[in-house]
Amino acid sequence: MHASENRPDQTVGQIGEMALIRRIAHWLGPTNPLEPEGIGDDCAVFQVEAGLPQLVTTDPVIARYHFDASVAPEWVGAKLLKRNISDIAAMGGRPRRAVLSLALPSATALDWLERFFRGLRESAEEYGVRVVGGDVAQTDGPAAAYLTLLGDAPAGRALTRRGARAGDPLFVTGELGGSLAEHHYRFRPRVEEGVWLAGRPEVRAMIDVSDGLAKDLPALLPSGCQAALEWDALPVRDSVTTAGDKAAGWCRALTDGEDYELLFAIDGRASIDRFVRDWRASFPCRLTRIGTIETASASGPPGIRLPPGYPELEKLAAYEHFRPGPDG
Amino acid sequence: MHASENRPDQTVGQIGEMALIRRIAHWLGPTNPLEPEGIGDDCAVFQVEAGLPQLVTTDPVIARYHFDASVAPEWVGAKLLKRNISDIAAMGGRPRRAVLSLALPSATALDWLERFFRGLRESAEEYGVRVVGGDVAQTDGPAAAYLTLLGDAPAGRALTRRGARAGDPLFVTGELGGSLAEHHYRFRPRVEEGVWLAGRPEVRAMIDVSDGLAKDLPALLPSGCQAALEWDALPVRDSVTTAGDKAAGWCRALTDGEDYELLFAIDGRASIDRFVRDWRASFPCRLTRIGTIETASASGPPGIRLPPGYPELEKLAAYEHFRPGPDG
Repeated sequence: MHASENRPDQTVGQIGEMALIRRIAHWLGPTNPLEPEGIGDDCAVFQVEAGLPQLVTTDPVIARYHFDASVAPEWVGAKLLKRNISDIAAMGGRPRRAVLSLALPSATALDWLERFFRGLRESAEEYGVRVVGGDVAQTDGPAAAYLTLLGDAPAGRALTRRGARAGDPLFVTGELGGSLAEHHYRFRPRVEEGVWLAGRPEVRAMIDVSDGLAKDLPALLPSGCQAALEWDALPVRDSVTTAGDKAAGWCRALTDGEDYELLFAIDGRASIDRFVRDWRASFPCRLTRIGTIETASASGPPGIRLPPGYPELEKLAAYEHFRPGPDG
Repeated sequence: MHASENRPDQTVGQIGEMALIRRIAHWLGPTNPLEPEGIGDDCAVFQVEAGLPQLVTTDPVIARYHFDASVAPEWVGAKLLKRNISDIAAMGGRPRRAVLSLALPSATALDWLERFFRGLRESAEEYGVRVVGGDVAQTDGPAAAYLTLLGDAPAGRALTRRGARAGDPLFVTGELGGSLAEHHYRFRPRVEEGVWLAGRPEVRAMIDVSDGLAKDLPALLPSGCQAALEWDALPVRDSVTTAGDKAAGWCRALTDGEDYELLFAIDGRASIDRFVRDWRASFPCRLTRIGTIETASASGPPGIRLPPGYPELEKLAAYEHFRPGPDG
């Protein structure tokens, strides 16, 4: 569905800013609380639970880069919220409140926008997020929506990317690769799993796999370390068909990205059996031990240690994907 | 200065996302704290002061709508932060933390961006704001920067737009009108004044004048009320020259907008003399009583009661400016 509309009476440009804000508040329904917590004053006002670490993250969706006319507007709205929720989940946090800044060409169709908000609202209701404020601006560029998400860490600590050590086993939830076949819209951020993991003292460091394992895993590694993967254990998504070429599946799991799974390291001295047993008693979600952090050999590339005899993996390693990034 | 650059080696497209994020962290200097509070993890993590109401607001600057090549990049960066700070000040709040989402064409000049961040950083240092996170995305539209600002209300309450009553006097800080002659870049949001006002029990409701008095004042009025202005007392900025035409000056004060002054109502039963004396002992900033809230006459338009005999004001009233809006 195209975001722009050729019936000018059904566009945001026609109804004007104030009427548009009223419609947005209506579309958001109960996820837009009454002011002063909700839309309608200079700021939204709220109280947080005393003592809990607070979290904030921000990610946009921009037309032509993140979505196009082939995508259902509901999916765009849901994805905007869920990709931010996944960042909160990656810290062991629970999402609480969002503010939304829209940049809209005046030809933006009200129908498109209503469906965008339907998707956003459904995800907000599912994950307990309130949309407490925002802004609407006109643009002559592509339609875009910038969401900032606030949350807190119910376990009393936020799990950062730092803290893993040599000897720590590495785990990943769910499956990897093949996200472009709908998974990158339909994924469910691992909020409850993340909160549970932050409450386990043996979990040392965590990240969500949004750029692909090859880029996100190195961000978990302490200085002077690399990841030794158990390649045959990699949970490659079933829909990734590689005609029996194992390495092709690994490449997809490493680089497709948008998996929105949790990747974490646990204390190498802890009982793995007990940890996995407790996990299975709590979640149906697949959990895979994919490798171990080890002291890096002087000769290898930083990041993930490659298995010998797979030139396609070595080619991948020539790109920045296999190097630690400053940010997810 | 143009935001785009024709030396391609000096653009954001050339250096890539990871190098760009490292540069931004460098440009922000001490206003970008170390992670986990600052840039570099899935979320920024922070603690808030227990019990204080928390505030959040968001406002962007978008090329061609909010700025163009005639504007110093430092001013654009400073304005982006300060217009958000003014919203925090309007609640009696103090700004604390910001997250910044950038949408940049690949031709964006690094020089331009460095100067943008210099202005942002100077204002952040001046107002005690830390830039704790953000996002950088590519766009084929105009360059744009979306800032979300978090703060708290040190007085223990946030001053909303609701709460004024008939009989309450109306005050405004500073001067109004003529903002386009640099004031809309050079203004200083009234943070300390706002915090002080929230600590005064006689102050009932507050807003910042960002769209102009004609649009923002009606948002303070309770249902069934209008504002009776003391027209000759309106603090029209000296630079607004109207060749002796009083009503022309009033129109400018009412509709120019971007004043970023505080407009508030105090309890009509309180001692005005004492309030004004205490203000003058605290702030050099001009303070003007501009009118009183009164029960609306059945015949007049909603909002501001117009003085008879000024047809240019009646013409203005035909626009939405004189009507209450849902949002500032």
